[in-house]
Amino acid sequence: MQKRIITIGRECGSGGHTIGKRVAERLGIGFYDKEIVELVAAKTKLSEDFIAAHGEYFRSGAFGHIIGYGGRFTAPMQTQSSIQDQMHFVQTTLIRELAEQESCVIVGRCADHILRERQDCLNVFIHSDMSYKVERSVREHGLEEEEAAGILAKRDRARSQHYSFYTSQTWGLARNYHLTLHSGFLGEDACVDLICAAWEK
Amino acid sequence: MQKRIITIGRECGSGGHTIGKRVAERLGIGFYDKEIVELVAAKTKLSEDFIAAHGEYFRSGAFGHIIGYGGRFTAPMQTQSSIQDQMHFVQTTLIRELAEQESCVIVGRCADHILRERQDCLNVFIHSDMSYKVERSVREHGLEEEEAAGILAKRDRARSQHYSFYTSQTWGLARNYHLTLHSGFLGEDACVDLICAAWEK
Repeated sequence: MQKRIITIGRECGSGGHTIGKRVAERLGIGFYDKEIVELVAAKTKLSEDFIAAHGEYFRSGAFGHIIGYGGRFTAPMQTQSSIQDQMHFVQTTLIRELAEQESCVIVGRCADHILRERQDCLNVFIHSDMSYKVERSVREHGLEEEEAAGILAKRDRARSQHYSFYTSQTWGLARNYHLTLHSGFLGEDACVDLICAAWEK
Repeated sequence: MQKRIITIGRECGSGGHTIGKRVAERLGIGFYDKEIVELVAAKTKLSEDFIAAHGEYFRSGAFGHIIGYGGRFTAPMQTQSSIQDQMHFVQTTLIRELAEQESCVIVGRCADHILRERQDCLNVFIHSDMSYKVERSVREHGLEEEEAAGILAKRDRARSQHYSFYTSQTWGLARNYHLTLHSGFLGEDACVDLICAAWEK
């Protein structure tokens, strides 16, 4: 089988993680979402909590330096770039390495943009209406119904800002993806089917 | 068969018209693109050329009045709204009537937004990279290769402005559609298959 990559950008609560995991299972390929946090942690000595908080969400004032990473990132380490910049650099390198190594699904972390020059990469974005995302987040992640919409919107703003900052592109613009899907309207099963079908083409 | 509608927004040169026509043929349902121009012409007495030029592309300074349309649009006719506003009103009414009457594919003309409250409506957007759109426009529509990119970009700007003006939404934002497809990457056949598959779900 020819090596191929699927990247999945997703709104919070849209089910993008679950859809991506099911796609990877059906195709029998690797799956990287939180797993990237572990890989970055192993290479940078930063805590997983810190990486999860900064690796995909824009936070102002995240200044400082990463120490180490095997000396491979000497140049950017010597500049006055923020921890967020350095984390993005480490994540970028990791995502490029993963795409070189194996067929896999990579969720979030600007992977669509990082791998945009590859011809073997299908870029997907999953979104939905707020009522579906709230219902799902209450059911799956135990969010309080009254607070859920606010929490999800705030997370998406931070994701959107992070994406714009590191790609100079608009998050969720159809043009940046090969396939975008409204999970609430189509349903999770259909999203899995459609991504697998697009991947086979 | 339950009645269902498919709307297709599309970038110029992406093949959205052809894809929509093939979807309609495969599903055995009506197809409305330029056909809407004819219907509007029949009801407003305006020329088809005029309607094609103003019905989907934003033009500044298109002021004036439509006379007639069977007296059904008396209220807006009496205001100082532009011809473009009145055409949009006529088109909107026609698109709502079509969606009430039959299963069909409707291309362009803000149909996704006009029919946004319907649960039986699948909203699709087709786009592609410029090199694919240029190659296709030279081959299919005889555009000069040197001029094609400029012409396509200008048309898309007018479509985008028209869409934003009448919907207060961003044209081509994934969130406004149930399914968006990159025709150059996926190929025309795959786009037809994926739309039909999404429609069946």
